[in-house]
Amino acid sequence: MAGQSRDVVVEPGPGTDTATGSAAEVLSGYLHQRAAEFLRGLRAHAQGAGTGGQDGTGRGGTAASVDVLRAAARRMNGALFTYRPLLDARWADELRTELSWLAGTLAREYAYAARLERLLSALHRLASGGTSGPEAPGRPAAHPAAPTGAVASRAASGPRERGGLPAGAARAGALLDRQLTLARTRAHSAALRALGSARFHAVADAVAVLASEAPLRPAEADGPASAVLGPLAERTGRQLVEAVAALPLSRAGAPYNADGLSRSLATEVRQDAAWDQVRVLLRLHRYAQEVLGPLAEPDPRLRPAGDALERHRAAAAAAAAAASAAATPRIAPATAYALGVLHADQRHEVEAARFAFGRHWTSTPQGATGC
Amino acid sequence: MAGQSRDVVVEPGPGTDTATGSAAEVLSGYLHQRAAEFLRGLRAHAQGAGTGGQDGTGRGGTAASVDVLRAAARRMNGALFTYRPLLDARWADELRTELSWLAGTLAREYAYAARLERLLSALHRLASGGTSGPEAPGRPAAHPAAPTGAVASRAASGPRERGGLPAGAARAGALLDRQLTLARTRAHSAALRALGSARFHAVADAVAVLASEAPLRPAEADGPASAVLGPLAERTGRQLVEAVAALPLSRAGAPYNADGLSRSLATEVRQDAAWDQVRVLLRLHRYAQEVLGPLAEPDPRLRPAGDALERHRAAAAAAAAAASAAATPRIAPATAYALGVLHADQRHEVEAARFAFGRHWTSTPQGATGC
Repeated sequence: MAGQSRDVVVEPGPGTDTATGSAAEVLSGYLHQRAAEFLRGLRAHAQGAGTGGQDGTGRGGTAASVDVLRAAARRMNGALFTYRPLLDARWADELRTELSWLAGTLAREYAYAARLERLLSALHRLASGGTSGPEAPGRPAAHPAAPTGAVASRAASGPRERGGLPAGAARAGALLDRQLTLARTRAHSAALRALGSARFHAVADAVAVLASEAPLRPAEADGPASAVLGPLAERTGRQLVEAVAALPLSRAGAPYNADGLSRSLATEVRQDAAWDQVRVLLRLHRYAQEVLGPLAEPDPRLRPAGDALERHRAAAAAAAAAASAAATPRIAPATAYALGVLHADQRHEVEAARFAFGRHWTSTPQGATGC
Repeated sequence: MAGQSRDVVVEPGPGTDTATGSAAEVLSGYLHQRAAEFLRGLRAHAQGAGTGGQDGTGRGGTAASVDVLRAAARRMNGALFTYRPLLDARWADELRTELSWLAGTLAREYAYAARLERLLSALHRLASGGTSGPEAPGRPAAHPAAPTGAVASRAASGPRERGGLPAGAARAGALLDRQLTLARTRAHSAALRALGSARFHAVADAVAVLASEAPLRPAEADGPASAVLGPLAERTGRQLVEAVAALPLSRAGAPYNADGLSRSLATEVRQDAAWDQVRVLLRLHRYAQEVLGPLAEPDPRLRPAGDALERHRAAAAAAAAAASAAATPRIAPATAYALGVLHADQRHEVEAARFAFGRHWTSTPQGATGC
């Protein structure tokens, strides 16, 4: 999904020897690089917004620079979270608040676009005639010998379904398009306002300071990187492990396990929050490991497990958008029906994402490259 | 699900030594027993219908005798299918047609009841508040630290969902109750008419003949059971294996595999037929093995794989009933929405049943008892 799992590859910076440097050198080196990326993204965004160009993906040329801004903001935020004891605490907390605000504001427009894309593609899949479907060619499935009972009655109700769902799906798609495009437009305006605000300029100033000099606490940060940064990174890792342990993972680990996943649409919001909490902690853990660089033990689970949780979030939000659209007054029953199918379909994607997360998470931590 | 997978345990009959007897002895012994069961079920049904009594499950007292009738009819049908070359072919084909008609007519009433039960229980699960849900007690899930972005917006749309689905679900349940109870009542009347018809009395007469003397072809049936029956049973087994091979099993074997399962509601009828064909062949194979008795190699996969396909059929029929109810004129959008959710939920059960079938089928054929 565009805008959901796009991410910027972080190269270890030159001139910072994580293996032998002090914690202060490693941490401020990481923060310097992220701050420099942020400022580059900011310049590119200002230029892109001026020309209004499009990149190859059809998204606005500013989309790529917004990605850079967001990725840098999230990584600075993560480093400030895990390594807070080495920094001026009040300064770190204030900057984290502002970076969260900025990343959230910038993310919203693209999240709405991705959500619409996800929902329309699911509607298309659900309603498509499927002549190019996955059935093996030449199969006799369409003409089974003597279908009995329920099969015959299903075949009889087939044309109604074939006619009914596409009609409702088209109207549901149009409704979602109107609602999510409106939300996206508003988010776009809000992001533009944010980027022109005094609040944003204060963030940019603080990041510019960070690009030259992070406010470290020398007494804490002057030890060797491995001895000082390692235990702090481990603490974030433990928080992640504890949050994962609270998930119904053994139950989600069995596919199609209705009991384990409680496919109750009424309780889904409460359940989703716990999984989303893990998503956030997993990202913080990944950024904490990035700071450590070669000092970190590589964990090939992190990326696929994180991707599964990004899909989890996207599908849960899409299901909620379908439910929300169904509450629109005076819609046709066929539209509501298609939205109901869509809601359940996206909850199914939520369940699939939980299963995928469980599989990645319980795989061998230090596995081969094929993981 | 009541009425779907209920089945009668078949005891090997006394006096037929399958290991040393001729094919004629073994086959006619099996047919005699099934015919006797059929006639016993018929007498019990006549008495039950007279008293109108209820059995312990709350179903009519006649339900148990209808089960006996159906099970015996299906098994005779299966034996006539597989071992047809040993029998008067025209007689076997005619009796099979009549037994299929009878079993189908008797099954319908209970199938509608089971379908309604399945749909109402799914609606209850989907709409329930879930205070006794599967979430571990004492989890902080309901109060996650600082939910961001999509989580916060989902939480905001929560109350609407909580209020909306139960209301729609109640109305959808009432609609399904009306429609399926009407269908059930009609099926009940049709079954009563069938049991009083001249056509039924002709079937009963034919079965009574079978209870004393099956019309075997001596030239073919006089060889040893293992040499004569074995190859015929293998032929049915091969038909099953070929039908399974045509299923997209490797794709269904990966859980939540949208590509493999084509979660297109428009093509579902075509797909379902191939799986239902396997269900029928698997049952025929199981009955062919029953005739062989101790000559058959026990295959512990057959029962769980067959149960999965019974669930497949029940869920597919339930999904179709939800879709059919949604086509009712002038229903409220909330009702249609709940029916859409229900349809997709039951298609999810279809997918789960395919996955379960694949797991059972690809497990070691001659496994331990734990299979």
